[in-house]
Amino acid sequence: MDLLAEKFRKLGTDNAPGQEVRQATGHNSLALKGDTLAGTPVDFSHGDVDAFTPIPGAFDVFSEGVQRGGVQAYTEYRGSLEVRQNLAKKLADFTGAAIAGDEDLIITSGTQGALFLAAAATIARGTKVAIVQPDYFANRKLVDFFEGELVPVPMNYLDTDHGAGIDLNALEDAFKTGTKVFIFSNPNNPAGVVYSHMEIHSIAQLAAKYSVTVIVDQLYSRLLYEGQDYTHLRALDTGNANIITIIGPSKTESMSGYRVGIAFGSPEIISRMEKLQAIVSLRAAGYNQAVLKTWFAEPEGWMAERTQKHQAIRDAILAVLRQVDGLRVRTPQAGSYLFPELPKLSLSGPEFVRALRLQAGVTVTPGTEFSPHSESSIRFNFSQDHQNAVQAAERTVAMIERYRE
Amino acid sequence: MDLLAEKFRKLGTDNAPGQEVRQATGHNSLALKGDTLAGTPVDFSHGDVDAFTPIPGAFDVFSEGVQRGGVQAYTEYRGSLEVRQNLAKKLADFTGAAIAGDEDLIITSGTQGALFLAAAATIARGTKVAIVQPDYFANRKLVDFFEGELVPVPMNYLDTDHGAGIDLNALEDAFKTGTKVFIFSNPNNPAGVVYSHMEIHSIAQLAAKYSVTVIVDQLYSRLLYEGQDYTHLRALDTGNANIITIIGPSKTESMSGYRVGIAFGSPEIISRMEKLQAIVSLRAAGYNQAVLKTWFAEPEGWMAERTQKHQAIRDAILAVLRQVDGLRVRTPQAGSYLFPELPKLSLSGPEFVRALRLQAGVTVTPGTEFSPHSESSIRFNFSQDHQNAVQAAERTVAMIERYRE
Repeated sequence: MDLLAEKFRKLGTDNAPGQEVRQATGHNSLALKGDTLAGTPVDFSHGDVDAFTPIPGAFDVFSEGVQRGGVQAYTEYRGSLEVRQNLAKKLADFTGAAIAGDEDLIITSGTQGALFLAAAATIARGTKVAIVQPDYFANRKLVDFFEGELVPVPMNYLDTDHGAGIDLNALEDAFKTGTKVFIFSNPNNPAGVVYSHMEIHSIAQLAAKYSVTVIVDQLYSRLLYEGQDYTHLRALDTGNANIITIIGPSKTESMSGYRVGIAFGSPEIISRMEKLQAIVSLRAAGYNQAVLKTWFAEPEGWMAERTQKHQAIRDAILAVLRQVDGLRVRTPQAGSYLFPELPKLSLSGPEFVRALRLQAGVTVTPGTEFSPHSESSIRFNFSQDHQNAVQAAERTVAMIERYRE
Repeated sequence: MDLLAEKFRKLGTDNAPGQEVRQATGHNSLALKGDTLAGTPVDFSHGDVDAFTPIPGAFDVFSEGVQRGGVQAYTEYRGSLEVRQNLAKKLADFTGAAIAGDEDLIITSGTQGALFLAAAATIARGTKVAIVQPDYFANRKLVDFFEGELVPVPMNYLDTDHGAGIDLNALEDAFKTGTKVFIFSNPNNPAGVVYSHMEIHSIAQLAAKYSVTVIVDQLYSRLLYEGQDYTHLRALDTGNANIITIIGPSKTESMSGYRVGIAFGSPEIISRMEKLQAIVSLRAAGYNQAVLKTWFAEPEGWMAERTQKHQAIRDAILAVLRQVDGLRVRTPQAGSYLFPELPKLSLSGPEFVRALRLQAGVTVTPGTEFSPHSESSIRFNFSQDHQNAVQAAERTVAMIERYRE
């Protein structure tokens, strides 16, 4: 079992968002100072679907799915053809390139399911896989689980105010030296930055030149703040057929409780993903697939209002955080993540995260989940009640001052 | 990509239940005789949840889950603690041994999800894994996917009318020669036979003696026909801590559209399963977890009536099939599968299955999905409308006579 023990050691979830409840409290081992700070607890580890509720009508469409019975319960492993065709049209419009809907699209158990299946379909033992630092924590874990070889590519998001700041020379070096797969999120999770047209264009050209398969997680690509543009990798015609785009309604649209996501692109990879889904979970829950019909078909103005509200929370929290001397933070261009780098504290990053939860009722995710080089950063998902979130940011600032070295 | 190509070749799903719609029709390559047979098409590849509907009240409990909002949408990766505790008590009563509910139980994306995670948690490259022939087709695929080494153990179900007929000497030989994991379904899928107390007792003792981890899929263990008893492996005290029991409401209770299942047992294995679920799908769909509260809490008499109705369909289909000279079939003791071995036909097993679908509107699953030695068997899931099912069985008999060699 040694191989397995090592494999599962790397999959540690103790600091993963939402798992804090499983941590031993371990007050004693922490060098805590001062008293607890009063205030409504806020869990910034994920969005609050009570503050921002699911797409209107989603539940009704789910109910219709249940009433439809067997047809909706037992779909093909890749999902209901009717729903896939509905999605194909909407996602082709959104991303700017055609989708057939049958051979080139699969409905998965959330976008996490899509990422898992896409990684499994492309990463064998020893496959070199480029990942961005920092980026979504599961990317690294997926490479480890499938025994691929991680090739990290830095993203210097704090040193620019345009684009994501990916080191394109490092990316080309990685591709030149045998990297076969590149996985990244755009907008970036955790930094909330959007890759510029130039960056996406370069990624597409390099991937085509070196025959690299690209898996791009576009989970937050609809929640773009004022004046922000977005380039869909798949819409650039570079002749690289090996692109998989992943997206889903779990975040911006608050449909996480339904666990449905989508992957589309290369039919060969989608076909492998379906074969694997057959033994992973058979299919995304049949009834739940129906709610995808409400996605990209929201009431007029609903997305615009949601975006404005998130932008207001973003700006209010940034105003609070920027009072802190030595704190560095980039203004997110999209999505609902904020990823400040804190000044030097007397506690380690993960220790401060625990202190923050225990003393201030503020749950955030430690930067080490996203990159080994992000020890002094913390991630907020600011899709929360506005007032509670701002007050929790103020308590966070008080805690930073308390533990400043 | 050679390693991966080989891996995914073994995961072929073309003949898997429910995937028939993806097969090229390929009339031309089949040596068809005669005309099509009129009648209501019946898909015996899975149960008909329109004929046998989900547990009364399940949808209402789902709705309450949605109204509960974030608490239900974002559970721990292993599932809602409230639901797990509710299940622990009911499943302890059912299986005859204690369950705490926290460290030793996980809610998964259907029982398929539980099987996948349990296999991943116990099978490394080269791990010897014993599987029964015939048994649920995913067992073999899981071993292949994780690059374990298959050690087949015969089950001579047609040569006995008590117990499953597992070859216990072959099982001990397998355990003696380095098998680390044993996966089996009880009641057996596809044969519908139940392991006797002696068989389960022997499996438990051998597993303890040779330190083998046992994964037992008890999906159909509630649907027992008249006079049938059932021994829960986990209730036998053999000191073997490495037992995982898998069960779910997808079959007997017709809740497949909600995609929820359960695994319980060894806390070490459950902990690994949770770590992996975090990157496979995060969690079973949060809202859907709520419906588990209705399970093992059905209205008085509901299960008894469901069992009687299934027994009546079983007996009616058996009466039809047993008219066929040279056909061998065991009377299922539990569940809703029938697995007759057909007389010699002029078409191969998989060809006959296609002819049956094209000419008689009857969809069954070829025996080769369950064992390389079951080429002349076909599997029926008889959880169907009674009259339609019997008529489809009659058409099947006509087709057997048509293609008899």
